[in-house]
Amino acid sequence: MIHTDLCIIGAGPVGLFAVFEAGLLKMRCHLVDVLPQVGGQLSEIYPHKPIYDIPGYPEIKAQELIDNLMEQIKPFDPGFTLGERVEALEKKPEGGFSVNTADGTQIHCKAVVIAGGLGCFEPRKPEVENLAQFEGRGVSYWVKDPETYRDKKVVLAGGGDSALDWTIFLANVADEVTLVHRGDTFRGAPDSAEKVFKLAEMGKINLILSSHLTKVEGKQWLQQVQLLNKAKEQIVLDAEYLIPLFGLSPKLGPIADWGLNIDKSAISVDTEAFGTNVDGIYAIGDINTYPGKLKLILSGFHEAALMAQSAFKHVFPDQKLTFKYTTVYGVNSF
Amino acid sequence: MIHTDLCIIGAGPVGLFAVFEAGLLKMRCHLVDVLPQVGGQLSEIYPHKPIYDIPGYPEIKAQELIDNLMEQIKPFDPGFTLGERVEALEKKPEGGFSVNTADGTQIHCKAVVIAGGLGCFEPRKPEVENLAQFEGRGVSYWVKDPETYRDKKVVLAGGGDSALDWTIFLANVADEVTLVHRGDTFRGAPDSAEKVFKLAEMGKINLILSSHLTKVEGKQWLQQVQLLNKAKEQIVLDAEYLIPLFGLSPKLGPIADWGLNIDKSAISVDTEAFGTNVDGIYAIGDINTYPGKLKLILSGFHEAALMAQSAFKHVFPDQKLTFKYTTVYGVNSF
Ligand SMILES: Cc1cc2nc3c(=O)[nH]c(=O)nc-3n(C[C@H](O)[C@H](O)[C@H](O)COP(=O)(O)OP(=O)(O)OC[C@H]3O[C@@H](n4cnc5c(N)ncnc54)[C@H](O)[C@@H]3O)c2cc1C
Ligand SMILES: Cc1cc2nc3c(=O)[nH]c(=O)nc-3n(C[C@H](O)[C@H](O)[C@H](O)COP(=O)(O)OP(=O)(O)OC[C@H]3O[C@@H](n4cnc5c(N)ncnc54)[C@H](O)[C@@H]3O)c2cc1C
Repeated sequence: MIHTDLCIIGAGPVGLFAVFEAGLLKMRCHLVDVLPQVGGQLSEIYPHKPIYDIPGYPEIKAQELIDNLMEQIKPFDPGFTLGERVEALEKKPEGGFSVNTADGTQIHCKAVVIAGGLGCFEPRKPEVENLAQFEGRGVSYWVKDPETYRDKKVVLAGGGDSALDWTIFLANVADEVTLVHRGDTFRGAPDSAEKVFKLAEMGKINLILSSHLTKVEGKQWLQQVQLLNKAKEQIVLDAEYLIPLFGLSPKLGPIADWGLNIDKSAISVDTEAFGTNVDGIYAIGDINTYPGKLKLILSGFHEAALMAQSAFKHVFPDQKLTFKYTTVYGVNSF
Repeated sequence: MIHTDLCIIGAGPVGLFAVFEAGLLKMRCHLVDVLPQVGGQLSEIYPHKPIYDIPGYPEIKAQELIDNLMEQIKPFDPGFTLGERVEALEKKPEGGFSVNTADGTQIHCKAVVIAGGLGCFEPRKPEVENLAQFEGRGVSYWVKDPETYRDKKVVLAGGGDSALDWTIFLANVADEVTLVHRGDTFRGAPDSAEKVFKLAEMGKINLILSSHLTKVEGKQWLQQVQLLNKAKEQIVLDAEYLIPLFGLSPKLGPIADWGLNIDKSAISVDTEAFGTNVDGIYAIGDINTYPGKLKLILSGFHEAALMAQSAFKHVFPDQKLTFKYTTVYGVNSF
């Protein structure tokens, strides 16, 4: 069981900056994100792209902004639970909340900050006959532990960086690796694509282009993956594992079931404290909505600052808050 | 006469960033500030101090933030009128506004953005007998044109950077330069102080320490400056000019007379568009107030983004605004 002042659901740019604003006011924070890394949309969708509308940065790469935010919150030493999805949010009879993940982690906190962006990132699943039936029985949409695939027959599918990177990595781990791709060129980094073509030439992997998955079969566990090529010919592969890597897309997910007022897939908040309809639960960043709301990183940053002022009163009801400048007081003497 | 879409009163960090947000939406901007340089409080009060709560900058010097903002708004090529105070703001019968400075500059615009911070920076005036009577007749609180002092007898007073810098500069211009300072060490940059001591040793200037101004006298024009030293002895100096340089402090000033709703020295605005009670006049940054307002740089940045959305509808009533990301569209193709 983890104990903290604020539990922040979502470790995107806004959740990260909330740690800073809370930290200035001496509130400890714990962050939870379903993704294995911090950074939200910026690190998952466009890490190498430049952003032009962060004030004071004529241009900054998305991942660089996240790295800088991590540096900025270091003095406040937040806790992290990554790779776990928050399923439930409960009000405790004795006060405070319990935030519970799908993997059984429980975080007890005085207030909750939902910085869940567009929602939980979930894998895009291809349309393949019987696919759902074999989830957890050979079919999975992420590589959590590569050792699972040691000396096994593995089929990967996809044309982006994840598909290329894991094909290259598993070539040295699995018994047999096949990469199936619908097109004949790759969207991923050119040098990764080149490596994959080389591995195929050397016979280290099987590369099947211009083909797509149609069906999976097996008894208890996955045994066969079926494909169709451009000429509409069926191909059948023996396989113990299938890893379709077609990217992640965000879904509001469990957040919709926590009794919060939702308006067009976003949580309604007031513009003074960015509080929800439940006292002690705040929502900031892309996940919230109010009149005039812009889904910009800058908006979430400002919302974090105002939220912290209000959360302070919730976490330390007996203390008085005085407004101070970081320039005058630094970050540790508020 | 200057024509523009938005006239921004105040070239502090918030006024500058407003140029960026307006520029993304194709609105041209002209900035006016009473100070001779941009940057507001940051450049005038604490240029060399670090700020810790700008998101994405674990630490940044105030002047560096201003320099970066100037770089960021370059693509939108704003106009600047510096060193002039906005006195009047008039609604034109044909639509739009006229913004008028004390020096007679007129700016015609479709909408006005007041980013006036804590107000107009005005000189701190020492308590000296008859001082006000000789303002404009030998006494002034800024050096606008150094040539005014060529071959004249000039007394400067103060212990900060301005007093040191202008003493050094005028040593080569005026006939006689005297620097009067209440203390015996200087607050300004050590190497400037050293230069001043050297000029005094070489007999190029008179340096009178541990003394303060008490009285000025003359007929029509200033003729004498009287001082008292530590030993309470009176000193009388012949002088045609006296320049007291005791820093600048902000005062709401003329903004209070423009018919806007004022609440505790700040302009009341709504939190959707940051509009005032007059349609087409916005207020952002330290100058505004609303429930939860924090006088932070970050707050003004976010207010600028939301203001721009609303000003767009005012400037281009017939056009539709679509929300776009800079990462996807850059800064010039909105
Ligand atoms: C291509 C692209 C370009 C963009 N360009 C710009 C731009 O130029 N300027 C700009 O300001 N904005 C831009 N944006 C928008 C910007 O990325 C978002 O505003 C920003 O990411 C919002 O940050 P956030 O922290 O609120 O949410 P996110 O970044 O979405 O982070 C939310 C996190 O919460 C996690 N989460 C959600 N639900 C749960 C749960 N139940 N359990 C565990 N974790 C959960 C998610 O996994 C995610 O990591 C762009 C977006 C895209 C996609
Ligand atoms: C010592 C100190 C430390 C600070 N530390 C921090 C910090 O760590 N973090 C933080 O976020 N904030 C900090 N602040 C506050 C921060 O400086 C302000 O929030 C910020 O300057 C507000 O920006 P602005 O553009 O709204 O106004 P300002 O910077 O005040 O600029 C307003 C400009 O408008 C001009 N103006 C006003 N009226 C007129 C007129 N009638 N005609 C022409 N020009 C006019 C003024 O001359 C001025 O240049 C600090 C402030 C001080 C003094």
